[in-house]
Amino acid sequence: MGSVFGSLFRIATWGESHGGGIGVVVDGCPPRLPLSEADIQFELDRRRPGQSDITTPRKETDTATIVSGVYEGLTLGTPIAITVPNADHRPEAYAEMKSKFRPSHADYTYQSKYGIRNHEGGGRSSARETIGRVAAGAIAKKILRLGSKSPVEICAYIERVHNITIPGQDGPNGPNLAFPTLEEVEATAVRCPDSDTAEKMIARIKEARNEGDSVGGVICCRVRGLPPGLGVPVFDRLEADLAKAMLSLPATKGFEVGSGFGSVGLTGREHNDRFINRGGEIHTETNRSGGVQGGISNGEELYFRIAFKPTATIIQNQATVDLQGQETELMGRGRHDPCVVPRAVPIVESMTALVLVDHWMRQEAQCGTFSFA
Amino acid sequence: MGSVFGSLFRIATWGESHGGGIGVVVDGCPPRLPLSEADIQFELDRRRPGQSDITTPRKETDTATIVSGVYEGLTLGTPIAITVPNADHRPEAYAEMKSKFRPSHADYTYQSKYGIRNHEGGGRSSARETIGRVAAGAIAKKILRLGSKSPVEICAYIERVHNITIPGQDGPNGPNLAFPTLEEVEATAVRCPDSDTAEKMIARIKEARNEGDSVGGVICCRVRGLPPGLGVPVFDRLEADLAKAMLSLPATKGFEVGSGFGSVGLTGREHNDRFINRGGEIHTETNRSGGVQGGISNGEELYFRIAFKPTATIIQNQATVDLQGQETELMGRGRHDPCVVPRAVPIVESMTALVLVDHWMRQEAQCGTFSFA
Amino acid sequence: MGSVFGSLFRIATWGESHGGGIGVVVDGCPPRLPLSEADIQFELDRRRPGQSDITTPRKETDTATIVSGVYEGLTLGTPIAITVPNADHRPEAYAEMKSKFRPSHADYTYQSKYGIRNHEGGGRSSARETIGRVAAGAIAKKILRLGSKSPVEICAYIERVHNITIPGQDGPNGPNLAFPTLEEVEATAVRCPDSDTAEKMIARIKEARNEGDSVGGVICCRVRGLPPGLGVPVFDRLEADLAKAMLSLPATKGFEVGSGFGSVGLTGREHNDRFINRGGEIHTETNRSGGVQGGISNGEELYFRIAFKPTATIIQNQATVDLQGQETELMGRGRHDPCVVPRAVPIVESMTALVLVDHWMRQEAQCGTFSFA
Amino acid sequence: MGSVFGSLFRIATWGESHGGGIGVVVDGCPPRLPLSEADIQFELDRRRPGQSDITTPRKETDTATIVSGVYEGLTLGTPIAITVPNADHRPEAYAEMKSKFRPSHADYTYQSKYGIRNHEGGGRSSARETIGRVAAGAIAKKILRLGSKSPVEICAYIERVHNITIPGQDGPNGPNLAFPTLEEVEATAVRCPDSDTAEKMIARIKEARNEGDSVGGVICCRVRGLPPGLGVPVFDRLEADLAKAMLSLPATKGFEVGSGFGSVGLTGREHNDRFINRGGEIHTETNRSGGVQGGISNGEELYFRIAFKPTATIIQNQATVDLQGQETELMGRGRHDPCVVPRAVPIVESMTALVLVDHWMRQEAQCGTFSFA
Repeated sequence: MGSVFGSLFRIATWGESHGGGIGVVVDGCPPRLPLSEADIQFELDRRRPGQSDITTPRKETDTATIVSGVYEGLTLGTPIAITVPNADHRPEAYAEMKSKFRPSHADYTYQSKYGIRNHEGGGRSSARETIGRVAAGAIAKKILRLGSKSPVEICAYIERVHNITIPGQDGPNGPNLAFPTLEEVEATAVRCPDSDTAEKMIARIKEARNEGDSVGGVICCRVRGLPPGLGVPVFDRLEADLAKAMLSLPATKGFEVGSGFGSVGLTGREHNDRFINRGGEIHTETNRSGGVQGGISNGEELYFRIAFKPTATIIQNQATVDLQGQETELMGRGRHDPCVVPRAVPIVESMTALVLVDHWMRQEAQCGTFSFA
Repeated sequence: MGSVFGSLFRIATWGESHGGGIGVVVDGCPPRLPLSEADIQFELDRRRPGQSDITTPRKETDTATIVSGVYEGLTLGTPIAITVPNADHRPEAYAEMKSKFRPSHADYTYQSKYGIRNHEGGGRSSARETIGRVAAGAIAKKILRLGSKSPVEICAYIERVHNITIPGQDGPNGPNLAFPTLEEVEATAVRCPDSDTAEKMIARIKEARNEGDSVGGVICCRVRGLPPGLGVPVFDRLEADLAKAMLSLPATKGFEVGSGFGSVGLTGREHNDRFINRGGEIHTETNRSGGVQGGISNGEELYFRIAFKPTATIIQNQATVDLQGQETELMGRGRHDPCVVPRAVPIVESMTALVLVDHWMRQEAQCGTFSFA
Repeated sequence: MGSVFGSLFRIATWGESHGGGIGVVVDGCPPRLPLSEADIQFELDRRRPGQSDITTPRKETDTATIVSGVYEGLTLGTPIAITVPNADHRPEAYAEMKSKFRPSHADYTYQSKYGIRNHEGGGRSSARETIGRVAAGAIAKKILRLGSKSPVEICAYIERVHNITIPGQDGPNGPNLAFPTLEEVEATAVRCPDSDTAEKMIARIKEARNEGDSVGGVICCRVRGLPPGLGVPVFDRLEADLAKAMLSLPATKGFEVGSGFGSVGLTGREHNDRFINRGGEIHTETNRSGGVQGGISNGEELYFRIAFKPTATIIQNQATVDLQGQETELMGRGRHDPCVVPRAVPIVESMTALVLVDHWMRQEAQCGTFSFA
Repeated sequence: MGSVFGSLFRIATWGESHGGGIGVVVDGCPPRLPLSEADIQFELDRRRPGQSDITTPRKETDTATIVSGVYEGLTLGTPIAITVPNADHRPEAYAEMKSKFRPSHADYTYQSKYGIRNHEGGGRSSARETIGRVAAGAIAKKILRLGSKSPVEICAYIERVHNITIPGQDGPNGPNLAFPTLEEVEATAVRCPDSDTAEKMIARIKEARNEGDSVGGVICCRVRGLPPGLGVPVFDRLEADLAKAMLSLPATKGFEVGSGFGSVGLTGREHNDRFINRGGEIHTETNRSGGVQGGISNGEELYFRIAFKPTATIIQNQATVDLQGQETELMGRGRHDPCVVPRAVPIVESMTALVLVDHWMRQEAQCGTFSFA
């Protein structure tokens, strides 16, 4: 029941790290959207391992096949099933995990919950599950790009890795960096558009890797082109659904929108975003709200941040217990990322796109279906 | 569609700040729970205005009536409807807001979304809506207290107001404060169990009030007694549903679980929670995970934090625009809290209880209904 | 969890027959719909007891109050709460039912399910619960009447009572009766627009009443003005959602759409509805499909039928058992309808309207939000 | 959004008749259920075409692969993805349908709804979609068989084909036929356990086929071993969810539970099911209710019937229109069943099992998770 996301643009992901494959079913997609496997592959390639020398060397091509829901290049409005086979399977690499719980992984909690687990590569708790999200997100992103009068741009990037942060702080309008282009984000392996910082981040990640250790980071995600009115009071506020979307990602520990935790350091007078008339349109002078007020988009740039903890897998001996609760040791093995955050960038964008398309459809449903002149 | 929360223990709230009243319908409540209006009133009294000299002087008794679903003192298993009439209505206090948008409130976004709004007291976007949540949460808290073998305790409190914070930082096991009692939390008007800090916070809030300004804060919420196994991979992770629950509260800007944003400053080696055998039971030696791993509770203390921005209502002239987009000024009026955070404490606990009861029922449904020996 | 209906235009009903009242919360209503209590009261008056000499003589005024969601005569887009107080309470009339199960009522099953029940008047299983549906349905009907280019008309009426049926059978286009007006339906107490048949039905109902017995009947519901395209494959077919809506009504035992069970007597050649061009528009020559093909409306008249069993309450001694399973007798008492079907007519229309508004919003959400030229 | 079914035991089907394949994702399955592809294949083989000389001669092996959610022969509690490739693809057989609408099929309504359709073999509206349901239903059936103390048996069979019906009528306890065994149902190609009637039905179907015509029928589905208490008032009554499940099947036109439409011919006195004590247990003396009262199972046999219209595809010239609305003719072609009902038997059982497992989990969630002694 927990593998379905969205209310109208609804996805169901399936698959374990080392089972027969990974996939997603997208239900409720608007019809007549031009869609090909290349659209999906582009985003999957941004997510897959082995892209650069700071990610895991696992060789996974992660090739997507659209099995249903598209006909002669256009979506049918019926469920779109996308599958990605697993590959590069080395079960022997996981033998020790069959009986021992990896610290700060989901081994113990899955075992407690279900009384069973697929220990190979983390099974369902593996980040490979996010392949389905990225595939679905690629569709959502294309809808936002092509389907609305004002194309919506979503851009996520890395703002911090361990103790390395893009210099400067948020101004009254949010991140102190111009809205980056995709090219700027993709320019470095670490997906930080500030190239000086990117270099330091890469060095820090390599250092962690060399020590058999790992580091985390912060992703900033920004959206421009959103119309006002998206988001539903009370429980399904736009930021609430975004928070859920982001905290549903592996390794996430925090979410903040707009001024976030930093808002606590300001007073109301300092924090409020005054309304102004800019060229005949209502805008806010500042944007500490982060593009959302009362749970509803206000037409300003939407921005939010997500904290990712350091990767739980480290190449070191760690104390742990086995299935019987006996204390033992586990040697970290496998081919893992010393920092997952760069590969999480397209995942964050995907979840964002899924939330936005869903809310846009909800807004149209309630406020655009009937009119009472 | 956005006023329904939960999948099995499901609530629907209704009501505007200045309409005919506020209420909630709780659907899916377990039968035979002893329940009286006093159970609900206790929590509503913690939430209502006018409790102390640092909250709004509005006089609202917020008296709850259980209209259905309880018979001879026990829940029937059918929907429990609870209503709270509105009172102390002063429409003239809101006349100016009819045509002007209050900065950093939801006036503009509601108007953009719906083409109409009830401007009196913020209408549906008012924090009065949370009355329904607290009433439902009171039921959920009683279920958690009475209905499980190991009673679950939920305790939220204020950790920070503006620049005043409880001294010290999280240790490897989380908050550097012993799990507080309800009495310790309720001892001061600001609901900070550290009495020295509470005094400073109260002073800071009064200072803000005297300046016609406002401040925000951080609430820490802690839960002990949870069994392992609650939370559903992938999208409905326990922390994802908690994040959504918290970000659905007015004035919230951030959420973090366990080590949260602070996790980014640690390496994997420093951050991982090793498993140990303590008295025959599996535990983690440290608790940077915050009681949840892979989206599922691990039996350790669950803790998370929520950032509340400074109250948007300030008693000052602010630049804004009117319905036609003309620039104008709005004088802050009304009887508002210079800091909403103390009154948010029972609301945070309520949302937490709602999420936990729902997930507990989901766990039992999937893993406790059928058995295959 | 079973008291919420609809996906986008979503209602939650609450209340027992003899508790504090009955009500409904309507979430997701389009904004700016003119709405007053009179709109709702009109339909409630059609449903309430005591309308005529063939319904129960219970005096229930069933007066609706709109408590939220409407401002200055227009819907706000936020939840609309409607309450109806209970009245004419005679608990002594139900004393015997506290310990004995009424045959073919829900007493035993509620007790089995919940281990508790409110025995007074059937509690939650009472047909009084449908007040909430009718109140919500009144809103949905108004939306369909005012909100779309081609106003949608919904007309339900009684086609059969016990062994009395409107003469004639369905033709190739459905019911052998011209689409009735509201006035024709309301002309008789039995809500059968064929006045000769109505007279016989009334006589039959009175006869049953005089014998302390009861009778059931069949309602036909017809809708015209629907656009093609409403209904969602696969599971949420229009007729599937209508079937669920109808079988969720007390005392219903069957549902059929279009040719229904009668279709089995025809061959494919006889049954198929050929397409024709009528005045430049695509139509079907016949309408055995009943306005829906593959789960989606085709623009023809939608028609379906619902079977209601004879009222379970009869004024006779009946064998039964008590809470301990001991065999005993129960004397039927109370003021009940010898035939519930006439009062079910507005309820059927309401459920129909709820389904149609919901599906219309779903259609617009998926196919009207985005366009890819 | 319409391809997801169930609230806790939730399935999402995907696939078109002539796309890349058909499949289903089952989310919320209890863990540790022994499950193999053979379990699924058994039911798929009952559904697939080419089983006998009265079904379509299309050669479809419909071989199921379990791609995820099962590990070492046991379910993991995570989503189970099952895929079935399409085969025997003859696009040229459908060329004419690209521009012409088949009468009483979903071609026109899909085109109206989506502005596009996959015309080959009916695309998503094809009965091939039910493969996913049967695969998921096989899992649900196994859960009901193995997972509960009192094994639940579900048996559907054909009661009527065109004008051939099993002789006799329902008695006070329901169908006038002893609860059939699977062997009795499978003994004839028509799946009617009364062998004399079966022979006549087969003859009638062959006659229709020889005339290029088609016939429909009625399926009776019976369930024994259900505990009391399954089903949720108000909207999610057991029979309401069953009605929705059945009316979501292609070619269905009606549903009735227990006495169904026949109840209208009885009076309350004749129809009521009196309670008795049978061997220390509460039962009803008769079972016109069909095992459900007030929407909740009462422990008696559950039985209901579904009407299937005659197959829309006939091998005859039929008048129709083309995409532009021009009147034209369409020659029926393809390899279709002159009567779909025999192959619908396992589909009906599958949908029944899905509803029952879901409701059982819901019952346990609400009434079995917490206890208040």
